Amino acid sequence: MTIKFAKRMDNLKASEIRELLKLTEKPEIISFAGGLPAPELFPVEEMKRVAEEVLEESGMQALQYSPTEGYTPLREKIAKRMETIGIKAVAEDILITSGSQQGLDFTGKIFLDEGDLVVCESPSYLGAINAFKGYLPEFVEVTTDDEGMDMEELEKVLSTKKKVKFIYVIPDFQNPTGKTWSVERRKKLIELANKYDVPVIEDNPYGELRFEGTRPPAVKSFDTEGRVVFLGTFSKTFCPGLRVGWTLAEKDLLEKYIFVKQGADLQTNTMAQREINKFLDIYDLDQHIEKIKDVYRKRRNIMMEGIKLHFPQNLKYTYPEGGLFTWVELPAEVDARKVLEKAIEVNVAFVPGGSFFPNGGNENTLRLNYSNMSEEKIQIGIERLGRVLKEML
Amino acid sequence: MTIKFAKRMDNLKASEIRELLKLTEKPEIISFAGGLPAPELFPVEEMKRVAEEVLEESGMQALQYSPTEGYTPLREKIAKRMETIGIKAVAEDILITSGSQQGLDFTGKIFLDEGDLVVCESPSYLGAINAFKGYLPEFVEVTTDDEGMDMEELEKVLSTKKKVKFIYVIPDFQNPTGKTWSVERRKKLIELANKYDVPVIEDNPYGELRFEGTRPPAVKSFDTEGRVVFLGTFSKTFCPGLRVGWTLAEKDLLEKYIFVKQGADLQTNTMAQREINKFLDIYDLDQHIEKIKDVYRKRRNIMMEGIKLHFPQNLKYTYPEGGLFTWVELPAEVDARKVLEKAIEVNVAFVPGGSFFPNGGNENTLRLNYSNMSEEKIQIGIERLGRVLKEML
Repeated sequence: MTIKFAKRMDNLKASEIRELLKLTEKPEIISFAGGLPAPELFPVEEMKRVAEEVLEESGMQALQYSPTEGYTPLREKIAKRMETIGIKAVAEDILITSGSQQGLDFTGKIFLDEGDLVVCESPSYLGAINAFKGYLPEFVEVTTDDEGMDMEELEKVLSTKKKVKFIYVIPDFQNPTGKTWSVERRKKLIELANKYDVPVIEDNPYGELRFEGTRPPAVKSFDTEGRVVFLGTFSKTFCPGLRVGWTLAEKDLLEKYIFVKQGADLQTNTMAQREINKFLDIYDLDQHIEKIKDVYRKRRNIMMEGIKLHFPQNLKYTYPEGGLFTWVELPAEVDARKVLEKAIEVNVAFVPGGSFFPNGGNENTLRLNYSNMSEEKIQIGIERLGRVLKEML
Repeated sequence: MTIKFAKRMDNLKASEIRELLKLTEKPEIISFAGGLPAPELFPVEEMKRVAEEVLEESGMQALQYSPTEGYTPLREKIAKRMETIGIKAVAEDILITSGSQQGLDFTGKIFLDEGDLVVCESPSYLGAINAFKGYLPEFVEVTTDDEGMDMEELEKVLSTKKKVKFIYVIPDFQNPTGKTWSVERRKKLIELANKYDVPVIEDNPYGELRFEGTRPPAVKSFDTEGRVVFLGTFSKTFCPGLRVGWTLAEKDLLEKYIFVKQGADLQTNTMAQREINKFLDIYDLDQHIEKIKDVYRKRRNIMMEGIKLHFPQNLKYTYPEGGLFTWVELPAEVDARKVLEKAIEVNVAFVPGGSFFPNGGNENTLRLNYSNMSEEKIQIGIERLGRVLKEML
């Protein structure tokens, strides 16, 4: 049998890293590889009450088909929460998605024909790159420093390239680098997007997990022309297993997402939407987020102290003010995949950074996650990784 | 602002019918329009116990990210259930999807380049047509009678058209016609698919809801070369709000679906998967399905008696042996959308059949759903619809 697949399937291949990381599922492994929240912080008892009450009060509705757009009371609450980062929104501006990953896939589907250009940070989120790849675009990476994208370079791209369909950014505690855009760059991004008439996709799964300092306004808050699509999620502040995220955009644009959602899976799990809505009714999500932040802040501290103490000197790395990741740059000639092989021998795992660059290269980088391991394991793991690095550099 | 969308978005437009059907959400409307299960049959009390036990026993895992493929114990149970229709499968052959709708979207994504051909029954499921349309194929409709597709016509299509990527069929209680394929046609379909080396997508959301007679073996059961992809769901036999369905295919093919799932939404809701698995552990789903069948059988009976009694004579319609729908053919010159307008005036709704023909035409048809209204409402509604039809014909 010779099945002829769509051309896009040539673009979607199993990565070697994925295969390598399968080795890291053993319990003895100290893994800095994934992007998993700490499960011991999940509000399991609260979820029991919430599930029971939702089924008691509205069991038939909670288990039935429901509108594609999502459960309106939840959409209202999300709209309200957006105010804290300067976004004025109402329920009608919000589509509930199956995690914000689904918003990324829809973005590709809505905007991208083969050969179109996606402008993104360098590096950028692997899951977004893979979702977009399914629609056969090319990627233009823009150099990104501690303040965000290089705006001169971005303007050069926008002024010379014709087929840019959107600019994709993760401005808060970026995945993979852990870096956050300055307010100035956010404003400038909107200025350039307006000037060159390009939509902006603002992916913001981590912004609420700030350990210190003040949360900057969303890029979307500076949007005067309805060109920013904002993607949010409860995966990092509540429970990822429920797969509830949202896409926020102005009406005409959101309508496209709603059409696409309908063909994709009709709607997001009704029960999960009502459970989160109920949780927001009877508990304080912000208080829950404070608990998460307390734990992650300590883990971040342990990891950063460990890096300072045990890693070779003169490496560049991010000191993240929030989120789940830090990012390390090794000397240019070192291949992080080789480091990973050695690290796995001492039961430590991480993600080599090369895959976060859609056009390749930069194999001398690595992403470290600190949210999913205990303080003790972080301490031990970073010490071991430090030893491996010192041997190899 | 002038946003340039992908070409596929021209293909995805709000349908007038959808707008018309929005009028039918008023409580006084007797609606035969949707495809909703009867919510009074949802196992709400059982779900309470199941939710509680899942959270009690494995709360942290149930709320965490989980593998893209799905929860293995649930995949095992689904594989086992497939035996009743002659499919030999193991957990590894099954990907859990967000409803079987997601399996349809993935099918489009995996197989279709612009201009490729999808061969389908005439008429076919609207949600599948819309999902496929996002990948810009053309549709070849094959005449379908009470036994399934016309096999001579199918062979003519397969022997002359080069770009057929797959054959899409709903062999059991088809949506929209309520018809079921004979065993002979199922075998012949596989024979032709083998001869012309084309994959078959078997969409089977209704097969378990058989009111009388014997369930035929799945098309997949005759598959000797691993070319049939089987799509199943718990939406009609359990609860659609949980959005849990599955795609069953041989390894190499399923791998494509898994890749695409990863980019689309990472995974299906962990909690919902574990809840259904737990339900299957402690309750008898088949017994639950018997209850559903008892209720739907009565509703089907009432509807069919009403049609016989109140509709104009000499109309063609399906007497469905299961599933959710019957299908009525009016005289060629009657436009079912006009009938709908009149019907809404007397608070009755249905779906005009034209939209189920991807290449248009056949506006003299209509689909009637009997699963979601009480026996009394079906009686009243069909009587009213009969009056409208008699006035118009």
